[in-house]
Amino acid sequence: MSLFENTVVIDGLNTSAETREVFEAMRRGGIDAANWTCVSWESCAATLHNVAAWKQRFVDHADLIAQVYTTEDIRRAKQEGKLGIFIGWQNSSGYDDYLPFVAIFAELGVRVVQLTYNTANAVGSGCYESEDRGLTDFGHDLVAELNRNAVLIDLSHTGARTTAETIRASKRPVCHSHTLPAALRPHPRNKSDEELRLLAQHGGFVGATAFPAFLRRGNESTIEDYVDAIEHLINVVGERQVGIGTDYTEGRSPEFFVPISLDKGYGRRLRDDAAGYIPEAIGRLDSLFPALAAEMDRRGWKQSRIEGLLGENWLRFLDDAWLKA
Amino acid sequence: MSLFENTVVIDGLNTSAETREVFEAMRRGGIDAANWTCVSWESCAATLHNVAAWKQRFVDHADLIAQVYTTEDIRRAKQEGKLGIFIGWQNSSGYDDYLPFVAIFAELGVRVVQLTYNTANAVGSGCYESEDRGLTDFGHDLVAELNRNAVLIDLSHTGARTTAETIRASKRPVCHSHTLPAALRPHPRNKSDEELRLLAQHGGFVGATAFPAFLRRGNESTIEDYVDAIEHLINVVGERQVGIGTDYTEGRSPEFFVPISLDKGYGRRLRDDAAGYIPEAIGRLDSLFPALAAEMDRRGWKQSRIEGLLGENWLRFLDDAWLKA
Repeated sequence: MSLFENTVVIDGLNTSAETREVFEAMRRGGIDAANWTCVSWESCAATLHNVAAWKQRFVDHADLIAQVYTTEDIRRAKQEGKLGIFIGWQNSSGYDDYLPFVAIFAELGVRVVQLTYNTANAVGSGCYESEDRGLTDFGHDLVAELNRNAVLIDLSHTGARTTAETIRASKRPVCHSHTLPAALRPHPRNKSDEELRLLAQHGGFVGATAFPAFLRRGNESTIEDYVDAIEHLINVVGERQVGIGTDYTEGRSPEFFVPISLDKGYGRRLRDDAAGYIPEAIGRLDSLFPALAAEMDRRGWKQSRIEGLLGENWLRFLDDAWLKA
Repeated sequence: MSLFENTVVIDGLNTSAETREVFEAMRRGGIDAANWTCVSWESCAATLHNVAAWKQRFVDHADLIAQVYTTEDIRRAKQEGKLGIFIGWQNSSGYDDYLPFVAIFAELGVRVVQLTYNTANAVGSGCYESEDRGLTDFGHDLVAELNRNAVLIDLSHTGARTTAETIRASKRPVCHSHTLPAALRPHPRNKSDEELRLLAQHGGFVGATAFPAFLRRGNESTIEDYVDAIEHLINVVGERQVGIGTDYTEGRSPEFFVPISLDKGYGRRLRDDAAGYIPEAIGRLDSLFPALAAEMDRRGWKQSRIEGLLGENWLRFLDDAWLKA
């Protein structure tokens, strides 16, 4: 039986170690499904290895996890008491700039893809690029191909201009799977109210990350700060277009954080705050969602709003985003 | 003995079929050395295959061709009556965006590299991109790494903004290995006088292509039109900074022109004029340089100017461009 019996709980972005220990922690924490990152800078060949490793995990831990391709799969995983995992990319690098690979990886279960990761590529610019140069001509082609294959476009790490141009170019609503409002904490990874509004006006979705560097009080932040940020998001984009995307990295060794802090995994240092320290006062994978529910309840939020934020909003959005054309 | 006994004749850009027949035609035409394209859209792995194929050709045709790493190698090839070939790329795609590969390929003899080929990549924008978004942050890193390894940067196919930003960012002079003045024929591949002047002011070099679509009268063009264009270049950038870069594609089958006309070799159609029809009235690899010399002589140009244009200017520029730091 799930911790949240009548609510599908979804983590819109998880980058934790792919271990049984972490899967178990997530189940203990009431999480029914998660978008699990499988690419940051990888090429197509390396990505195929990463996807194959996931396929093997789905076999090895078939009692505990199941691959999710559709929202029906998410509902079934919950019924079976399993953690449903859908494969996501934080960069379009896995396509090697070859559009026919979109359909190939979609068939293999890649359901969410970021166009860029922090810097500029052939598609567009990232949020750590000194100047956002916008969605390229090829970027427009890629957006159309992702749309055609019902792959959800994620703009969490893209820059402002690329984000706005993608929102306008995409024929399907897009998401920030893990971001926070810049109004509460200016940061290259956070989004301004204006940007959030543009996304929402086009039917987009925002997953609120618990990453402390993006929260108002940084590493001093508590669950209250996190729910304040969620409340801000609700006020800007509307309560039905907000969910959770933890960006947790539980079980990762220090080495994990080196490549994700450097351009293309080895180059210029882009940031010093990637390491995933999560304050006790926010919570971990096995405690975050219950803590969120408790804090939201303390604020007198309606049960329907709380259920929406914990996962039902994501589920409804994905119903649409993943609908085959 | 060479056709031009006392002049080193250089073709700054050749994309012809890599056959013995073509090598022989070039020797008959008095060409001592050529920058031979080995990459248009290829990734690192495919490029390594292309480079390996060249290494095999240098063995198979050791009586006729020799690989050139330095200008000393060019002079030696001429003395030995061989065609010296230096490997060039029309796209930085061969590096797979991995900076340490610059030194690897430099050691293998890759001496000239274009940053972009027609469209935008992680480095900058191409001349067929709807908007030139400029040199990216990674592009600045790549320019520095090419400079450090004394690899000549070629901007023939980059867009205007990326070109200007690269000229300013590069610590070594750069080149357009094969272009023509837009003042005589507006075309995405041609350069305005202002752009040419900026290049020249920074010590850069221009190879004049004989590609008819870039000449004033298109496929009706003659050797006179070509020399008119060369004369215009001389007037804008100075006679010592101009040479020849034919962009000839002799011996290529029709299939060759398909990928070079499409984005990334398979995508959006970028141009319809890539197929390399060369008018009789301009000349072929076995006749062009003698025809150029004759037309320049007919105009009463000094022998020293003619020798410079046929190859001595390229040679002097490469002496500098390839000088180890």
